[in-house]
Amino acid sequence: MARTIERLAIVGLGLIGSSIARAVKAKLPGVAVTGHDVSAAVRGEAQALGLCDRIAADPAEAVAGADLVIFAVPVGGMADAARAVAPGLRADAIISDVGSSKAGVGAALREALPGHLVIPAHPVAGTENSGPAAGFASLFDGRWCIVTPPADAPAGAVAALEAFWSALGARVETMDAAHHDMVLAVTSHLPHLIAYTIVGTASELEEVTESEVIKYSAGGFRDFTRIAASDPVMWRDVFLANRDAVLATLQRFNEDLTVLQQAIRRGDGDKLEDWFTRTRAIRRSIIEQGQDDAAPDFGRKH
Amino acid sequence: MARTIERLAIVGLGLIGSSIARAVKAKLPGVAVTGHDVSAAVRGEAQALGLCDRIAADPAEAVAGADLVIFAVPVGGMADAARAVAPGLRADAIISDVGSSKAGVGAALREALPGHLVIPAHPVAGTENSGPAAGFASLFDGRWCIVTPPADAPAGAVAALEAFWSALGARVETMDAAHHDMVLAVTSHLPHLIAYTIVGTASELEEVTESEVIKYSAGGFRDFTRIAASDPVMWRDVFLANRDAVLATLQRFNEDLTVLQQAIRRGDGDKLEDWFTRTRAIRRSIIEQGQDDAAPDFGRKH
Repeated sequence: MARTIERLAIVGLGLIGSSIARAVKAKLPGVAVTGHDVSAAVRGEAQALGLCDRIAADPAEAVAGADLVIFAVPVGGMADAARAVAPGLRADAIISDVGSSKAGVGAALREALPGHLVIPAHPVAGTENSGPAAGFASLFDGRWCIVTPPADAPAGAVAALEAFWSALGARVETMDAAHHDMVLAVTSHLPHLIAYTIVGTASELEEVTESEVIKYSAGGFRDFTRIAASDPVMWRDVFLANRDAVLATLQRFNEDLTVLQQAIRRGDGDKLEDWFTRTRAIRRSIIEQGQDDAAPDFGRKH
Repeated sequence: MARTIERLAIVGLGLIGSSIARAVKAKLPGVAVTGHDVSAAVRGEAQALGLCDRIAADPAEAVAGADLVIFAVPVGGMADAARAVAPGLRADAIISDVGSSKAGVGAALREALPGHLVIPAHPVAGTENSGPAAGFASLFDGRWCIVTPPADAPAGAVAALEAFWSALGARVETMDAAHHDMVLAVTSHLPHLIAYTIVGTASELEEVTESEVIKYSAGGFRDFTRIAASDPVMWRDVFLANRDAVLATLQRFNEDLTVLQQAIRRGDGDKLEDWFTRTRAIRRSIIEQGQDDAAPDFGRKH
């Protein structure tokens, strides 16, 4: 039988943690939410924003009595955050998280909390902004949340976590943690790495000034700057945690880039046109499946 | 003394050409506009949309009497389009274009139209859509238009072209054609190449299906699909025309990507965090200078 979540603890009140708090308040008003953040400044901000029913300065106190504890901290900080709350955990609490890599995070949480039930999850949603003020209740609407339960997880607990994310507006999918990490390496980590790279490259050329790059960014460059403005610590941790899958997809990207580079050098217009024609179809599918706006230019105001 | 534009001919009625027609109708109602497109289907669509005062099937007839002729065709098609209109050109007409590479296009237009005054220009604006229905009058508002006059261009003609683009809402800058091509290689061509590459890579992996890539694209990938949905022929021509600058900036990008790849492999978190922190500032500047929306996630609806 599916358990019901009545008391939620959120550890980490940045963009995602604060969005969960807001979404619970809006869509699951019966659930009591306690929030904690390691930073006193963030706790103060969360308090002022009225994000949670209660903000606890002490991590163990924050999770006391909670039947669901969600860690919403950079993936490299999961183990420390888990050890800090351990003394306060209910024995039967569901332990989950929102990290962008799953195999490593699951292992870290299980090691930090032996005997506890860990069911990692990842809402594939976000913006380039950070901190408790950046969150909003509709962040998860229509986005996918990937749950990666271990093989021996009790079905009732998995169902409760899935129902929780569905209630927040997400569509839920389950998969193996290793497969999640490969999928996200392609759909999220590699794009961030490429965006960070090109924005860095453009800002350090001798021939073109940074001020020119900014001025003429509407030619395409500005699209990359959005995700290259994402939280540096969060992304540092993602690349370290999902290293193997990221390096594997990066190798494939490099091969393809070399092929196109050679086509440009040789003046092989047919190869370029053929490639560019195929990529058009992907965007059409993304829009059809509701994963992006159909409006031109992302719906930017003109 | 600056000349005044009274009769405009637009050759090529796609996204940019049709946006010029619309912007002139909205902001320079005194200017008579004749449009031409090599495609009968596009001419019919332009006629139905009422884009121009007159649509001419014959290219030479389209430019007859025009004091400004703007070629808005893929850069590889400029020379043919110019030869086609040549018999109808006024001797003192200003010949311009909107192509994304300038040194090659300027040379091609001058060679095709000996004795005529050619002043290339490039409005740094667009969307991922194509065709006459995709244009809109406000496309150039607040965007930069780069004019690359040859050293011997009469000041009055240059001023007239600049005034024309200002009147359409653009901010105007002049620079040397070779420098333009280097600037745009960084701010537009390399980003398109990278986006085309990664979208192709993601759609052909064995480990992750195309349907998974589409489903979980909100993690960052979808940002790249917008410009990778741009017109394939236009972009084929841009890479062939601006080959040297594109390959030079691509080499710099590859160096930087290798550095970050090595940092990931070695687990050098400090290097990653330092890099990711620097790139944040660039986006802030782009927003401050009005070249992108401040709204999170490009202002996408949530």
